[in-house]
Parts: sequence; C-alpha cells; structure tokens
Amino acid sequence: IQVMETPGHPSVYADWLHADGAPAVLLYGHFDVQPVPDPAVWSSDPFQPDFRDGRVYARGSSDMKCQLLASLLAIEDLLAEDGRLPVNVRVLFEGEEETLSPNLRGLVSGMRDRLQADFAVTADGQQPVAGRPRIGVGSRGFCDLEVHVQTADGDLHSGTYGGTVRNAARTLGELIAGLYSADGRVAVDGFYDDVDVPSHEERVLLAGELEAAAAQGAVLGSTGEPGWSAWERATLRPSLEVNGLIGGYTGPGPMTVVPARALAKLSCRLVPDQDPDAVRRLVGDHLVRHAPPDVRVTVVRGGASVPAYRCRRDHPVVTAAASVLREMSSGEPELAISGGSLPVQAYLKAELGVSTITFGFSTDDEGAHGIDEFHRLESFTDARAAYRRLYAELGRAPVEEA
Amino acid sequence: IQVMETPGHPSVYADWLHADGAPAVLLYGHFDVQPVPDPAVWSSDPFQPDFRDGRVYARGSSDMKCQLLASLLAIEDLLAEDGRLPVNVRVLFEGEEETLSPNLRGLVSGMRDRLQADFAVTADGQQPVAGRPRIGVGSRGFCDLEVHVQTADGDLHSGTYGGTVRNAARTLGELIAGLYSADGRVAVDGFYDDVDVPSHEERVLLAGELEAAAAQGAVLGSTGEPGWSAWERATLRPSLEVNGLIGGYTGPGPMTVVPARALAKLSCRLVPDQDPDAVRRLVGDHLVRHAPPDVRVTVVRGGASVPAYRCRRDHPVVTAAASVLREMSSGEPELAISGGSLPVQAYLKAELGVSTITFGFSTDDEGAHGIDEFHRLESFTDARAAYRRLYAELGRAPVEEA
Repeated sequence: IQVMETPGHPSVYADWLHADGAPAVLLYGHFDVQPVPDPAVWSSDPFQPDFRDGRVYARGSSDMKCQLLASLLAIEDLLAEDGRLPVNVRVLFEGEEETLSPNLRGLVSGMRDRLQADFAVTADGQQPVAGRPRIGVGSRGFCDLEVHVQTADGDLHSGTYGGTVRNAARTLGELIAGLYSADGRVAVDGFYDDVDVPSHEERVLLAGELEAAAAQGAVLGSTGEPGWSAWERATLRPSLEVNGLIGGYTGPGPMTVVPARALAKLSCRLVPDQDPDAVRRLVGDHLVRHAPPDVRVTVVRGGASVPAYRCRRDHPVVTAAASVLREMSSGEPELAISGGSLPVQAYLKAELGVSTITFGFSTDDEGAHGIDEFHRLESFTDARAAYRRLYAELGRAPVEEA
Repeated sequence: IQVMETPGHPSVYADWLHADGAPAVLLYGHFDVQPVPDPAVWSSDPFQPDFRDGRVYARGSSDMKCQLLASLLAIEDLLAEDGRLPVNVRVLFEGEEETLSPNLRGLVSGMRDRLQADFAVTADGQQPVAGRPRIGVGSRGFCDLEVHVQTADGDLHSGTYGGTVRNAARTLGELIAGLYSADGRVAVDGFYDDVDVPSHEERVLLAGELEAAAAQGAVLGSTGEPGWSAWERATLRPSLEVNGLIGGYTGPGPMTVVPARALAKLSCRLVPDQDPDAVRRLVGDHLVRHAPPDVRVTVVRGGASVPAYRCRRDHPVVTAAASVLREMSSGEPELAISGGSLPVQAYLKAELGVSTITFGFSTDDEGAHGIDEFHRLESFTDARAAYRRLYAELGRAPVEEA
C-alpha cells in the first residue's frame, strides 16, 4: 500500500499479485466527497454517519464511501476465507474525482507499469432503483471555461452613464444568448463537427430512464436538440451549460450601477469523438468573436479535459459483470451510458488501453451531491457479496489484447 | 427645528419665517451617504475626515455633507451679521436620498402646509470643474425591478441533465438579450411611447460634457440609441440597465450544476412624460411574455418610482441663481439636465407645484459614491459665500404662481 503524491490531493495505490496465470483487475474508487454548502438544512450532521431506517445518512455515503468500502471488504472476505484471491488486483483510490480528477491523468501516465491490468472496475456507478442492475459502459466527456466581460475600469453610475456605455452584465447576457440557436441546438460553429452519430441499434439498445429522473428533479421545462429524445440528449449528444454567472450589484434594494465586470462559468458534456480542448477552444473563440469589439472579453481555460468513453458491449469485463448480476437478480442487467463524466475511464483507456466498467449498487434516489445523502445498508451488503463473486468471475475471464 | 419620523430614516424640518413680504425658499439636502463596501482600499479611514492638500477626504464629503453645511452656515452668517434673513427659509434635510427617497413623497404630502415655498434650492448638484458654474434644471426619473427565473426545484447535475432541461442562468441571459434591439434601442414594446421629444433648441442649449466624463470612468465602449449623441442619451433619452445578475455556482473551480434559479436587478432612467409605474410594468410584462412558457419568471417591483423633472429656464429661481454665479465667476452658468435622479425635485413639483434647482459646488471629479471621495475646501468656502448671496437675490426675486 502506497500513498501517491500529486500536485493536488494524494491517491492511494495497493496491489495483490499472487494469482499466477489469472488476469489482473484494476479497482478504482474515490474517497473525496462533494462539499456541503449549508449543513443546517440537513436532517443530521452530514459528517457524522447517522443510521436510521436501514440507511446511513452522511455526505459521501452514496457517492461513494460505502461502495468503495464494499469493493475492498470483498477482497478481505476472500483473503480471510481462502488465504488468496482468484484474480490479481491493483487498487487505485483517488481524492479528486469530485473536482474532475485534475491530476489523475498525470498520475496514471507516471504509473503505467504498476497499473497494467486486463480490465478495470469501479463501484462509482448507480442503479436506477435497488435490485435493477445496471453496468456502466460509457460516459460523456467534459471541458470547462470561464468568460470574463469587462466594460470599464470600475462600476459606473447609471444616472451619469445609463443608456450610453457598454454594460458588462447586459453584454454577458447577450453572449450567453448567442451560444444557442432558436431551435435548441448549440450555435457554436463546429460544435457538432466531430460528434460520432450513434447507430439506430445503439439508440434502441440505450432506451432509458431520463424522464423518470426529470420528475425527481422537479424540472419545470425541457429544451435541447430537436430529433433526439431527452434521454438521448443527456447521454449520446453533447451539451453546453451555463453553470453560473455573476456581475454588478445583487444585494437588497436598488444600487444604480452600470456593472463594469461580469463572468459566467460554462461547461460542456462531450461524446465520441469530440476533443475536449478543441471544443473548449471553439466555445471560447465563439464568445470572443461575437462580443462587441469595444468590450474586453477574456476566456479562462477550466481545469478539466475529459474525453468521452465507451466500453465494448462484448468485452470480457462486461460479460463477467453481467453474469454476476444475472445470478443475483431476476432481470437482465442494463448496459448504460452515463451523461456524467468519469475521468478515470477515459484516462485508463488513453494511457493504458484498459477498459473500465462501473459496477455499483448505489441508486439514483440517494441524493448524491445533494441534501440528506444516504445509502441503503442492504445495497452495501449486496455490493460486498457481488464484488466477491465478480473477483471470482474475473479470475476466469478470457484475456484479450486492448 | 423638528425631527420628522418616517417609516424609514427620519428627516429634519426647520424654518425662519420673519422676512415679511419676501418670498419663501425651501432648502433641501440629505445627510445620508453611500455605503463603503471595502474601507481597506481607501487611502484613509472613510469615516474619519482627513484634511490634506486643501481637501477633506471622507465618505459624504462631496455628496453632500460639506455642501449641506455650507448652505446652512450661510444662514448663520446672515443671522449673525444682520440679525435677520432677506428671505423666508424652510429647511428639509432627509436621510434616504441615496436609496432613492422611498419615504419622501409621503412626507412631503403630509407636510404640505409647512413646505409651501416660492421655489426650492438644493446644493446636491455638481459642477463639471471648480469655477465652471452649473445650475441643475432637470433630472431623469427612475424605476426599478427584479426578475427571478426558476427552472427546477433545485440545481441539477449537468451530467444527468445537461442538454435536456431549462437552465435558469441561460434563460436569464436570453431574457436580458431580448430587452435590446440590435441597433441599440430598448426593445420593450411601448418603452418610448410617452417620451417627450426635446426640441432642436433644447438639444443645442444642452450640449454638454459627457465625453469628458466617459474618459474619467475609463469606459471601454459605448452603445445606445442611434440618432442621439452620448450626452443626449444620458440626459434627454430614457435608458434600461442591468444593475446586477447572479445565478448558479460562481466560486473557484468547476461545479457541474444546471442552475435552477437566477435573478437580475434592472432599472430605468426616465424622461418627461414617462410614468415610472407604467414603464416598470412594460418591462416586467415584456420579460414574462418573452420567457419560455415552461419557465417560472417572477417580476418583483422595486421600491422607487421617480418621475423625470424639468424647471423652466426663465423661472425666477434660475434667474437669481444665474445672477449670483455670473458675479462670482467669469463665465455664463450652464443650465444642465442631470442623467441621474433627484426624487425631491419631482415630489415637490407634484405635491406642491414648487420648482427646485440644484446649486452646488462639488465637482464631478471628487469621487462621489466611489473610493477616496473628497471635497475641496475652497469649494466649501465658495458655496458658503454663494448661498449668502443667493438668499439675498431670492429675497428680491419676483414671486409667481406655480
């Protein structure tokens, strides 16, 4: 077991490599959690696990401390019982997944030899509901940027200047509006150029669950590209979202300023074969090109560049995982593509040629990233048993070239 | 002398009414000041007057504590020397001018009898530079509102929802963009309907100083209605500005939310004959009408409704003030319309039929509302002497029906 320092938070590496002749699995997880902006609105202290109603309530309980622990305890169970494992195991747990793993690619690249494996598995994935198994075989990529608008040295008095000068807040609004077409598409030139259009077969295979999820989020209205279902828009198609904006005076009462500065944080979810850096550049260039020439627009590169990821549906790791899930439940496991981003999948593929699936027993309703996050104790027990079976299956899995 | 309570901060009333047969002047001022968001960036404590280089540095020194004091000390000077004043004087000093006098109209309305006067004067006006006299004969009106956009119960994960649901920050940007035409005009239906178009003569008379002021503010770019100079846009034409906006996540690093809520604060500067409440309603209706039907848009009425104000150029109070300024300096005083709003002018006119001029000796460069606000001690002395002469002139001024 070794702590691996990075320019940010450290990772932990460990291995057990005594299953001669058997394949090697890389087990990934993350021990960092989302922040809690306001602990007071939780029903119990988010940083003290509270056990009630067959659940544990705590920040990180669903995403993903319980699942990480279950995947580890399954190894302990096997070692205690058999004194050995059926598969070679390498473990990489990181502490920066919630900030989009800014140092993971460098770490993976520098540890090539020690991370060599035939497949990778992470419990960082959800099931739609408990007992309805899902294997994650893909995720969207990610890139982010900030746009800063400046129209004067400092805020100006709207009495003196109102109606005569550029207003940073207004210009930001106009720039944001200019990112989208009236029909709901992203209007950035070239945004869709490298998008790999999924086959009809893939679209049918991936019919999914988003409408139900939307109801959960109490979403008032929908938008997006015409010609694609909501679920397809969220997984097979790229998106550009404003994550936040701020400028001028936003406190109580009137303050009669013409704001000199405003900023917006933007990010894209990407699909194969979009390049995160190229898309970020397209968006930044679009903003600069569409700004009035007498306004200072600065685009600041975000920290994350994550390509989209796909795992072959007939890959041995998928077959092994599906076999375990089929035995443990009544139904056929769903092979799903996530609309979110799991940087480790893209980086292991790019740096090592290793394919990663998500094999997790948290569920969509457990409030990951939100208030009163919880995890079902039964799901924890299921995960521990399932991982034990999975290690055995993987020990027997055929090994193939990447 | 009497403290007049209001639902907000109190005002002070005083009078001296022993100049039998002479007219009565109402002297207005305000003793409140702008806030100081960050005292640390000042060269000296903003709330401890610091005398250096022939100036006094302090919050409120330019706007308008020194000028208020000068207009009062001139009364003391006359009483000390002559034992009487050449004009009847009523004084009304308020404490809410910087928040657009939310309780002043009610106070004026309730004190009709005691505020009766032939004209009103306030030192709350600036000269372009010291020694270049200006009389304020008009100001723009004001109304404000907030627009709140809601697209879901809470922020959503951009991985799960990106590209599929309404985004409050994006919708707010689109609503802001929709308030303006490509040619720079305000696009709100009916916004210009009641605007009194100034005559060619008025436009020529009012040729002014905005370009110089713009340079002071380090303004990067200009915009506005075609067909009007920058100075005309700032005084003779109405405007709609975004004073601030906020929504979603704006801290450091990425946070991959689809914001559920965003808001913008908006305000208008108005000209004759626009009605503040009617214009606010037009803007609010435009926002609601142009929002996607599946987004919740709430318009919150702001606290201020100030009509624009004009004083006749041949009014006796203008003639008297011009005569004083002509004697004290080499040039002819400029008769100016302010782009800002001085609620007292509109309210005295509406409630009592009394015309108000600004007669002030602060200058545009003294950093009112800004950092390191100061006032020139020489301007303080000039004001004290000028007000003494003004009271004498007003005592001789012809009295006319409103």
